[in-house]
Amino acid sequence: MTVFYPNGQPFKATPRSVNNNSDSDVVYGHRGMTLEEDLNVTNRYYLEVDQAVIYKKPTPIQIVKVDYPKRSAAKITEAYFRKASTTDYNGVYRGKYIDFEAKETTHAQYIPLKNFHAHQVEHMKKIKHHGGIGFIIVKFSQTGETFLLDADYLAYYWSEAKRGGRKSIPKQLFLEKGHAIPQNYLPRIDYLRVVNKVYF
Amino acid sequence: MTVFYPNGQPFKATPRSVNNNSDSDVVYGHRGMTLEEDLNVTNRYYLEVDQAVIYKKPTPIQIVKVDYPKRSAAKITEAYFRKASTTDYNGVYRGKYIDFEAKETTHAQYIPLKNFHAHQVEHMKKIKHHGGIGFIIVKFSQTGETFLLDADYLAYYWSEAKRGGRKSIPKQLFLEKGHAIPQNYLPRIDYLRVVNKVYF
Repeated sequence: MTVFYPNGQPFKATPRSVNNNSDSDVVYGHRGMTLEEDLNVTNRYYLEVDQAVIYKKPTPIQIVKVDYPKRSAAKITEAYFRKASTTDYNGVYRGKYIDFEAKETTHAQYIPLKNFHAHQVEHMKKIKHHGGIGFIIVKFSQTGETFLLDADYLAYYWSEAKRGGRKSIPKQLFLEKGHAIPQNYLPRIDYLRVVNKVYF
Repeated sequence: MTVFYPNGQPFKATPRSVNNNSDSDVVYGHRGMTLEEDLNVTNRYYLEVDQAVIYKKPTPIQIVKVDYPKRSAAKITEAYFRKASTTDYNGVYRGKYIDFEAKETTHAQYIPLKNFHAHQVEHMKKIKHHGGIGFIIVKFSQTGETFLLDADYLAYYWSEAKRGGRKSIPKQLFLEKGHAIPQNYLPRIDYLRVVNKVYF
C-alpha cells in the first residue's frame, strides 16, 4: 500500500541492501523517477516476491589509484568510467537466461542508435544464439510509454545503419513489433508480464 | 601456440576489449596466474569459440566524488569498494543460466567459509530455485587442484556453520562430491566440460 505524506509526497521506504547498484535511498513513489530507478525497484520487487533473479550490473570502472589509510576502508582516489561490453541487466527467470539493455529517449518519434554500443549489439546476438532471451526496454520520456523490443530488431537496425540506413529506431516499430510494458505501482515496469507472453 | 621470450617469459598478447573487467594486459602463459585471471582467459576463450557467454561482473564501487575536467574524461576522485550481493560470474550456456563464485584457498585441507558472503549463498539458492545452474569453483593453491562443487553443498555447510558447526568446507568434500576441473593450455580451467557432465 502506498503511503503519502500530507504534502502529497510518497513515503520514503528504508533502502534495502539487496541491490548492490543503487547508491541512494529508493523512493517508493513515481515522480521524476528515471527508467533505471524504476527498473531497480521492479527487479527488487521480482526478487522479493520470488519471481525472478535479475540484477543491474555494476558500472565498470577502471581503478588507477587506491589509498589504504590505517584503520579505515580502502579509498579509490583515481578511477575512470569504462564502456560496458555487455548489457546492463541480466539474470534468470523461469529457468531461462534473461539479458537486456534499457534506455530512455527524449525524442517523441524515435530513439537514436547511438544510445547503444556495437559491443552490446554483438553481445545480445550471442545471447540469443546460445538460447538466452535478449531484448531492449525503451522509454519515450515525453509520454512515459515504455516498450520491450526483441534484440533481433536492434541488430537489424544496427546493420542497416552501418550500410548507410537511418541512424535511429522509429517509435512506429515499437508500436508494431514491440510490446507496451504495463506500468503499475508495483511492479513498476512489469516487463516480465511481457516476457511471459512473448518468450514462453 | 604459446610463444616464449628467450628469458622464458611467455609472450604477452594484446589485450582484447571483449572483457570489461580485466584492467591489465592478459598474459597467455600459466605462471603465477590467479584463479581470476585464469577464468577471465577461459571465459574469453569460450566466447571466442562461441561456446558460451559468461562474464565476470565488474567490482561494485560506491562513487562519492567525480571531477569533470574540460576536454578530458570524467575522473572519479573518491570512491569505495562495496560488498557484492551476487556472485562474480554469470552468463548463458546451452540455453541455461549459469552462475558461480570462484575462490582460492592457501589451506591444504579446507576452504574457510568466510571466503563467501551470506548474500552470495542466498543468491545461489535463488538461482537454483529459478532453474539456473549454481556452483562454486575452488582452487587449492598449494597443489593447483581446482574443483567445481554444486551450490547446494555450500548452502548446507553455511547453515551448519550458523548452527555451530565447522566454519570451513573440507577438501575431502570436493574429492567426494565435487568434480576436478581439467586444466589445459586453452581453455585454461575447462569448467564447462564438468558442467556438461553434471548438469546436462
